[in-house]
Amino acid sequence: MSNQISASKQTSGKDVTSTSKKLIVATLLYPDFELMDVFGPLEMFGMSRFINQGLDLKFVSQTGDVVASSAGPKSVCDYSFSDFETCDILMVPGGLGSRQEVNNKELIDWVQAQSERATYVVSVCTGAAILAQADVLTNHCATTNKIAFDWVQGFSASTNWHKKARWVKSDNIYTSSGVSAGTDMSLAILEHLYGREHAEKVAHLTEYVWNHDPDNDGFAI
Amino acid sequence: MSNQISASKQTSGKDVTSTSKKLIVATLLYPDFELMDVFGPLEMFGMSRFINQGLDLKFVSQTGDVVASSAGPKSVCDYSFSDFETCDILMVPGGLGSRQEVNNKELIDWVQAQSERATYVVSVCTGAAILAQADVLTNHCATTNKIAFDWVQGFSASTNWHKKARWVKSDNIYTSSGVSAGTDMSLAILEHLYGREHAEKVAHLTEYVWNHDPDNDGFAI
Repeated sequence: MSNQISASKQTSGKDVTSTSKKLIVATLLYPDFELMDVFGPLEMFGMSRFINQGLDLKFVSQTGDVVASSAGPKSVCDYSFSDFETCDILMVPGGLGSRQEVNNKELIDWVQAQSERATYVVSVCTGAAILAQADVLTNHCATTNKIAFDWVQGFSASTNWHKKARWVKSDNIYTSSGVSAGTDMSLAILEHLYGREHAEKVAHLTEYVWNHDPDNDGFAI
Repeated sequence: MSNQISASKQTSGKDVTSTSKKLIVATLLYPDFELMDVFGPLEMFGMSRFINQGLDLKFVSQTGDVVASSAGPKSVCDYSFSDFETCDILMVPGGLGSRQEVNNKELIDWVQAQSERATYVVSVCTGAAILAQADVLTNHCATTNKIAFDWVQGFSASTNWHKKARWVKSDNIYTSSGVSAGTDMSLAILEHLYGREHAEKVAHLTEYVWNHDPDNDGFAI
């Protein structure tokens, strides 16, 4: 589906965007995901198209059926695990449901396999627990939300967990702190892909006050 | 559906919350709505349940069918116009689709009728054009997003349009500036309903840096 792009995994953002194909952002949905973990980043990735860099936003769930968020609203999925091929950016949100999904072997295996094929792997909030359980964060730096920090870091002793960080970039893996932090991180991903001016334009179009410093974390204890 | 609550329209937020029923937040969805206009506020309204004030989040569209946002992701609706009764908080998002919907007589008539029955009427971004077209903003103060400001204010000459405002409260009507401003406004609505401490707790749980001053608008020209 995106072999040209995946092949450029080790190159800079500019190489990634040299293809004329849109980057595919696949967001994993599972029951009781957290709304803004998903839709904050997707707002920014979606708005990017108005500055000539459209991304293709897709939802994937285990069965491909509709998935309800923990707050209630339901989203339609584009793919099940079995009919999904690959993506450029794999995004794993957090939410109450992550407490169940860390024990869902089919989901963890899918995340592990897709993480190896994706150019970038991204988690928001307790999505980091799912990445850790899938061995994606082994020997990487990472962060997660404040309230569930101890629970999440229990899934990977070999990860360098940052307690004070809005988000952490570790090679091609981005992990953010809780809920809203994912939106700031998504603009940093756009900056990496398309440059600072591009990310600032997206923030301006959405009238979003972007915290562009990953170390500026007012919620750290 | 919520007659006890609607009957308290003229009272303070504390009276509204004296009922044991959850307040119903009905968000109007139409093709090409903007993601964060909807899901920023719903994140905050949803998180409120962890501080003992749950709100019931529902989606309504003209036909009740699935609705696609302008960025692609699709949401499942709970009601069509014909099977929807009433709500406590009516929320009208913006998005590219608002350019079409201002000419959709059935939608405008529905917004007008529901606005008269709801306790609070809320718009984000160009959702204000729909409210203005439905005569909801007549003799009220209001704002909208920066880029479409001239277009939106053309729908109501009798509205006092605020060009510099993160959001505007005018009696029971809240209108916000572009996209992300709706999230700040939604916390101000929670503050009105349940107090400042409650809203601050919701912001803290979501690791959200709340701009709680409606006049603090860094995007005004």
